[in-house]
Amino acid sequence: MRDVQTRMENTLEHALPPLSHAPSRLHDAMRYAVLDGGKRVRPLLVYAAAELVNGSAPCTAAAAAAVEMIHAYSLVHDDMPAMDNDVLRRGKPTVHVQFDEATALLAGDALQAQAFDVLAHAPFARAADQVATMAALARASGSLGMCGGQGIDLYSVGQTLTLPELELMHILKTGALIRASVIMGTYCGEPMSSEDRARLDHFAKCIGLAFQVIDDVLDEESDTATLGKTVGKDAANHKPTYVSLLGLKGAKDKAAELLNEACAALAPFGERAARLQALADFIVERRS
Amino acid sequence: MRDVQTRMENTLEHALPPLSHAPSRLHDAMRYAVLDGGKRVRPLLVYAAAELVNGSAPCTAAAAAAVEMIHAYSLVHDDMPAMDNDVLRRGKPTVHVQFDEATALLAGDALQAQAFDVLAHAPFARAADQVATMAALARASGSLGMCGGQGIDLYSVGQTLTLPELELMHILKTGALIRASVIMGTYCGEPMSSEDRARLDHFAKCIGLAFQVIDDVLDEESDTATLGKTVGKDAANHKPTYVSLLGLKGAKDKAAELLNEACAALAPFGERAARLQALADFIVERRS
Repeated sequence: MRDVQTRMENTLEHALPPLSHAPSRLHDAMRYAVLDGGKRVRPLLVYAAAELVNGSAPCTAAAAAAVEMIHAYSLVHDDMPAMDNDVLRRGKPTVHVQFDEATALLAGDALQAQAFDVLAHAPFARAADQVATMAALARASGSLGMCGGQGIDLYSVGQTLTLPELELMHILKTGALIRASVIMGTYCGEPMSSEDRARLDHFAKCIGLAFQVIDDVLDEESDTATLGKTVGKDAANHKPTYVSLLGLKGAKDKAAELLNEACAALAPFGERAARLQALADFIVERRS
Repeated sequence: MRDVQTRMENTLEHALPPLSHAPSRLHDAMRYAVLDGGKRVRPLLVYAAAELVNGSAPCTAAAAAAVEMIHAYSLVHDDMPAMDNDVLRRGKPTVHVQFDEATALLAGDALQAQAFDVLAHAPFARAADQVATMAALARASGSLGMCGGQGIDLYSVGQTLTLPELELMHILKTGALIRASVIMGTYCGEPMSSEDRARLDHFAKCIGLAFQVIDDVLDEESDTATLGKTVGKDAANHKPTYVSLLGLKGAKDKAAELLNEACAALAPFGERAARLQALADFIVERRS
């Protein structure tokens, strides 16, 4: 995992326009938002899924970089005053604090375009796989995916959500991009059957939800220093969470159930899916 | 042209998620930002360029819708308080005024994703052309294109730009997407030689700049009611314009020169480029 994370920094470093290119302040902000931060869960998933198809190194790297750029842009915009108004992210000032709001807005916009740019210029053996990769990323990013989940989140402040409603929100908000990471990885090498891809999609759906359940648990249990971002904001904003709906123990049980279901979906792949399995464990057992 | 504009409304209507889909407020804002507005210059250019390659109807429609969604999202974000803080666009309240800032931010983000989604799901005969179309749109939208131009614009407030600096800004800010429109159209049908595509790119570069020069002229000569947006903002913000650098007559002469150069680039195509020619004339002669 650490090996992929190190390679990822290098890939992202080269997939972003250099500071020497105008406007350098915008490129500075884009690099600030993406480089040297985060657990790189989505890139790790792309790499782990690509192992199942003997993924080409440059295509896997491009897919991993693209999904991380989408994730990073969503954090930049989420942190802005119009949304969560957060000043701290990964232990550093958020982009609009470090730069300014207009730059944060533009940097986010440019990162989304850069994600598709990187994919569109990767050396895929089959252009149809390249299109499928971009299709998965676009659908997962837009209003039927991540942005839609953020919208439901936004409009749910102060509302009482049922568990199915909360689940739909998170399946879109966090889950869509996690699922896309796995699916994108499967298009980076040899052809995969649609049955196998559906199994992996179910795996990814489960760990995507588990990721969010654990996020809510950590938000309740951890402190700002460990997490690197402001804790307790959801409760303060009267946002529904798994912990508020299920209690702390209920939420932990839910995460364990989802992990089991995810592992079951991997069973037919045997040893080849060891890395995906390890990532699923990591997602549920992480402390930050 | 009116025929394409009418078809375009219909295409965009179907290319955007329906209001019935959650979150409906987000989809309402996306539709508000895109439908029933604007001259559709970029879609018209896509269609006119696609005529040169007997473009497939659904692919041309998808390319036209995609580029218009990118244009529309850029206006939504541009109008926000953190950027131009504009309350009027196409004679209607801007998205953040009609809805709210968070919704405007998300709607813009989701529209950018939707643009790539639409392209990724269009029935291109050759996947390589589909990738090329998406590559052109991504490059034109990001920090080496439109977002980069907006950044240079942002950081130039109160600065004295030289004519080449102003030109670079506009080649990126407005020109990149106009060039992409023409290039995308050429990938929607039969193969085109790279020489022909380069000629069309030069044509598009000239009319892209002419478009901005005329924008500056109209901002000086017109009134808010005719233009449907607040006039005189650039002067009020001490932003450099072609009129401030060249004077009104100088700017008009510049536009005429660019139109001539654009027409010269079209000459080898003869009658087949009649519609591109008509669009170039329209861009320079428009009154709003």
